Amino acid sequence: MTDSTFNLTHHIRSIPDWPKKGVIFRDISSLLEDRLVFRKTIDLFVHRYFTTRIDAVVGIDARGFIIGAPLAYELNAGFIPVRKKGKLPGTTISESYSLEYGEAEVEIQTDWLKRGDRVILIDDLIATGGTMLAAASLLQQLGVEIVEAAAIIDLPDLGGSRKLKEAGITVHAFCEFEGD
Amino acid sequence: MTDSTFNLTHHIRSIPDWPKKGVIFRDISSLLEDRLVFRKTIDLFVHRYFTTRIDAVVGIDARGFIIGAPLAYELNAGFIPVRKKGKLPGTTISESYSLEYGEAEVEIQTDWLKRGDRVILIDDLIATGGTMLAAASLLQQLGVEIVEAAAIIDLPDLGGSRKLKEAGITVHAFCEFEGD
Repeated sequence: MTDSTFNLTHHIRSIPDWPKKGVIFRDISSLLEDRLVFRKTIDLFVHRYFTTRIDAVVGIDARGFIIGAPLAYELNAGFIPVRKKGKLPGTTISESYSLEYGEAEVEIQTDWLKRGDRVILIDDLIATGGTMLAAASLLQQLGVEIVEAAAIIDLPDLGGSRKLKEAGITVHAFCEFEGD
Repeated sequence: MTDSTFNLTHHIRSIPDWPKKGVIFRDISSLLEDRLVFRKTIDLFVHRYFTTRIDAVVGIDARGFIIGAPLAYELNAGFIPVRKKGKLPGTTISESYSLEYGEAEVEIQTDWLKRGDRVILIDDLIATGGTMLAAASLLQQLGVEIVEAAAIIDLPDLGGSRKLKEAGITVHAFCEFEGD
């Protein structure tokens, strides 16, 4: 009998005090480097959306690209990057969001997605949700339908997934870490 | 009869004077956003390495992730990121390289690749080759065999692919733009 269970959580490495003291960093590198675990992880996303009409996968710079690009490939969808401001040429729109100290801004090109297009928004992890909310806002400005905002990991105690839901966005993560 | 030709070059958008005056930016966004063109592009890489033993695909931050991750998935290989310094937790080695003004540094985690592992090194574009040479040097320090350093685009006039070859690294790009 084939083992049909796959618990992602066991494959994520926790690094204490990184990038600063008191923070536990959830490192997906340990999940990417193992060929079978990487394949199973991508397939969790692929299977979730396989029977849904998806026009494009929108990946958030940079770890969102590592999940989003294979997902787009497997769903026969296009891939659209959301990047930090200043990285994308051509006509763009941008949206700022708050960081612990100061602000950051994300950007998307306006040439590709059309009103009514159906997309999945992908990042590796949802923490405070700032980046994903800003990315979602860009998509909403383009009139795009966000079928789901999805990540490997949710840190529910940081409130990001709650804020996304309160903004009317369907959210999914394949595992959670509490107490972050 | 099915059309078996696919000319990538036609799908790459050229943006004059970006990021600064006098530079023509080769934008792969136009190639990613189109589901069929994206699939064909990834498949060029997949077919090239399909019968070769590859342990991992090493992708360079950030556009190298968009090509490298689906390639790793399709080759049943692991995916290892090379990132700008300060982005990767755990034990790392780093290598600096020259920019037009100043220096930059790329980094890789040392936990995953073993001596003798066979990898493909991926970025979207080879220009002066600084990043790719630094990434290749990191892999050589780990005793890893670089089967090929590959990109979608080569800008041969900027000398990067020549420098990589001079360093003994096999290089491949699927299209070239001259006069950059």
